[in-house]
Amino acid sequence: MCQLLGMNCATPTDITFSFRGFSQRAGVTSDHCDGFGIAFFEDKSCRLFIDNKSAVESPIAELIRNYPIKSRNVIAHIRKATQGKISLENAHPFVRELWGRQWVFAHNGDLHGFKPELRGRFIPVGNTDSEYAFCYLLDHLVERFGYEEPGLEDVFQALEDISPKIAEYGTFNFCLSNGQALFSYAVTKLHWVVRSYPFRPTQLVDLDMEIDFREVTVPEDRVAVITTEPLTHNEAWKAFEPGELILFRDGNLVKKSKTYIDRLVREALDPSLRRVTKADVY
Amino acid sequence: MCQLLGMNCATPTDITFSFRGFSQRAGVTSDHCDGFGIAFFEDKSCRLFIDNKSAVESPIAELIRNYPIKSRNVIAHIRKATQGKISLENAHPFVRELWGRQWVFAHNGDLHGFKPELRGRFIPVGNTDSEYAFCYLLDHLVERFGYEEPGLEDVFQALEDISPKIAEYGTFNFCLSNGQALFSYAVTKLHWVVRSYPFRPTQLVDLDMEIDFREVTVPEDRVAVITTEPLTHNEAWKAFEPGELILFRDGNLVKKSKTYIDRLVREALDPSLRRVTKADVY
Repeated sequence: MCQLLGMNCATPTDITFSFRGFSQRAGVTSDHCDGFGIAFFEDKSCRLFIDNKSAVESPIAELIRNYPIKSRNVIAHIRKATQGKISLENAHPFVRELWGRQWVFAHNGDLHGFKPELRGRFIPVGNTDSEYAFCYLLDHLVERFGYEEPGLEDVFQALEDISPKIAEYGTFNFCLSNGQALFSYAVTKLHWVVRSYPFRPTQLVDLDMEIDFREVTVPEDRVAVITTEPLTHNEAWKAFEPGELILFRDGNLVKKSKTYIDRLVREALDPSLRRVTKADVY
Repeated sequence: MCQLLGMNCATPTDITFSFRGFSQRAGVTSDHCDGFGIAFFEDKSCRLFIDNKSAVESPIAELIRNYPIKSRNVIAHIRKATQGKISLENAHPFVRELWGRQWVFAHNGDLHGFKPELRGRFIPVGNTDSEYAFCYLLDHLVERFGYEEPGLEDVFQALEDISPKIAEYGTFNFCLSNGQALFSYAVTKLHWVVRSYPFRPTQLVDLDMEIDFREVTVPEDRVAVITTEPLTHNEAWKAFEPGELILFRDGNLVKKSKTYIDRLVREALDPSLRRVTKADVY
């Protein structure tokens, strides 16, 4: 299984503090050792760094921990392979261009038997359920909007429709960004927090490390952090509800919606239907 | 203007030697300081590293020089901005997915007034003539072949048709790879060499550095290197003819063709027509 980390900010922000803690889960505080990836938006550009070494051992992860890239939208992923071999083409996040913007996607969970037809516009390079779902989702956006770029609210509505349909096939927690905003969706496990003025000192869960955000911020800073498991001890992390979709922009939660996942309701009524997926075992 | 470096190999090969020399041109032996990029294929996966610092100063370029990534297809680019501001979204190489493969493209030259309509399938993220030409070229491939992946020979024929049409608008030297092979096209300046058994010692042009390839190769190795200006003193670099398209696969030149560029013939007959582009001034 995998863990996700997303960041959406009002001003370009360095993710090194959160990434230091998060990357400890790739072998030190957890066993997500089968590769890592991180994508940074800088204006419309997106830089993706992936490696099939763990985020603890990879020289590329070491570069990221030490080279503060300032970004308003970041998505990172550490992988414990369940579907798809351990190879670079299966490393999240995945990136595709649509409407002259890069779209970045990372997924936590397992989808079972999810193989709808793709229209050819987006085809997976690797062989994960995750990249397949990403291509399907983008296909759906093109089917709905054509090649006229819609607004973020329109994309939100499209995700509200399509995400629970994919979630019928299993666990579908994801972070998605086009550099303007960050969309997060959870079926089982995802948490978020907003760091804003007045800032406070904070301690990482995964590493004996503290930062006093008062010393490294200005009042205009505002940072939403989204992650599988909370990264810090003393911040007010909120858990996503099952089926919840949230749109973060400029470090604010600007829209949220709880989608209806038929499978979850059926399973609640009759627990014998429940297929425990590896996604549930962290 | 820019400089290009391509590598196509029979076996996964480390490009650090050639990249060390090439990256000197980003401020030491030449002034291509406005960013760099390098894309490595590893099987179907493609890792792209870009920075808007020069390849001499960038910590990412330093990582590349010291972290030997083995690849069968590599494309690198150092930039001296002529069109498009210095920003990450304008850094070459550009990458798009088509037919479930990553396609990587880097361009040297200037195109003037090249703005044909794009169909929406591929839209530039930045604002360079180069990314526009890449999107146009991929558009043409989809128009010609639809979403059924053609063979490399078919792609070669398509490039034979479309490249000289783009070259009517200016200097269009490029390297293009989908991870299976490398296509190179030149209007003004591009050189290539194949390194194969028996290997020999070689000295870089741009750096006081020698390598004895006999010590770091096996007889099965075979490496085609394509670059704007020859990288070494004592190898038999060949210049592309104007309009020449070459397909390299497994380190071999497998196909070449000389395309007819009407503009070059007109300019040869009447030199007053010739618009000296910055591309010609290295």
